[in-house]
Amino acid sequence: MRSNYHEELSSVLDRLHEMAGLVEVAMVEASSSLLHPDLDQAERVISSDARLDELHEELEFKCLSLLALQAPVAGELRTIVSTIRVVFELARMGDLSAHVAKIARLRYPDHAVVSDLEPNFKRMAEVCIEMIDLAAASLRDRDAKSALRMAQIDTEMDTLRSEHFDVILAGGWQGTTEQAVDAALLGRYFERFADHAVAVARRVIYIITGDTPEGIDWPNA
Amino acid sequence: MRSNYHEELSSVLDRLHEMAGLVEVAMVEASSSLLHPDLDQAERVISSDARLDELHEELEFKCLSLLALQAPVAGELRTIVSTIRVVFELARMGDLSAHVAKIARLRYPDHAVVSDLEPNFKRMAEVCIEMIDLAAASLRDRDAKSALRMAQIDTEMDTLRSEHFDVILAGGWQGTTEQAVDAALLGRYFERFADHAVAVARRVIYIITGDTPEGIDWPNA
Repeated sequence: MRSNYHEELSSVLDRLHEMAGLVEVAMVEASSSLLHPDLDQAERVISSDARLDELHEELEFKCLSLLALQAPVAGELRTIVSTIRVVFELARMGDLSAHVAKIARLRYPDHAVVSDLEPNFKRMAEVCIEMIDLAAASLRDRDAKSALRMAQIDTEMDTLRSEHFDVILAGGWQGTTEQAVDAALLGRYFERFADHAVAVARRVIYIITGDTPEGIDWPNA
Repeated sequence: MRSNYHEELSSVLDRLHEMAGLVEVAMVEASSSLLHPDLDQAERVISSDARLDELHEELEFKCLSLLALQAPVAGELRTIVSTIRVVFELARMGDLSAHVAKIARLRYPDHAVVSDLEPNFKRMAEVCIEMIDLAAASLRDRDAKSALRMAQIDTEMDTLRSEHFDVILAGGWQGTTEQAVDAALLGRYFERFADHAVAVARRVIYIITGDTPEGIDWPNA
């Protein structure tokens, strides 16, 4: 019975790793379609999101079956509930990637991001991709090290968000109102993606180590 | 053992009802501080959010204990996992109310919402408050009827969001870029609040009836 539990959990973690990989692809393609307007690529991100929603349902059900069939004990319970939470967070990260792609599609063939903000958004996207990549690495290697590095990276997101507000709201804004609104919403989507990534990291560390790391200044996610 | 489970679950549902009540107060005060600039009120919403985060932790732990001690069977399992999800969604709704209050605080003593958009935001706030009120009523009465009415109301949110984008992005926008950006972000917060309310309603209906209603065109939340 116990060995069954560990095998089943391990197969769920493999599927979580797969799901994190799909989220990474979604964010890579969404930000690319945004920064180098590409309608097909944007459409691909939007239509692929259904696959993540399916995985969400499937893995939530799998975790419930594990709870029902294996009657896990206290620590195992928290592991499975954490897993359900990670599945949920990853699905939201997929939704946010699709939101980015929808703005790219809406403005195509124009650039949704004005050239003044391009370096800022390019870096925001890189940080998001790096974060989901660290989460995926922790799931693949069953090693918390990668996920632990995430708290550091996330602080850069806050700086990037302040910087782009400075550009939009400074007196000298050269873009249109529409471009300012797009930038504010896109910034929010990237920021939320990062928040969810941090939440994933915390739970993945718990799943792998059975412990919540102290002494790390995790942002509130 | 079984009667214990039902008593424990009932006490968790009472606490969920209490939590929903606090979220309702947060949204009532946040939108009031936004539409009638009031610094104290905005501060109160922001500082009260910590109480919702505490309740989140406390109720999640309570649900885990219920899982661990009562070894619930299949349907009960899904009920408890749904409860954990409702707790999470309510906490997010509290965060979003605090986000609204933060914009009110940032612009105080000015109005963050330009007068052209006031009726739109007033109605958005009313819809949000009505939605959380329906969820709370279902939890209080242990009756799905109120929660079932939510799908209808939520469609009005989409219309309201389109309407305010029409105002912001139409050629004749009279406000500043800052006001447009505030409006876009505020609209997003109200919209997300409503999305979470719909997610709460779906789970509350399940918790109360043991069934997910078919034939209702729930928005994707």
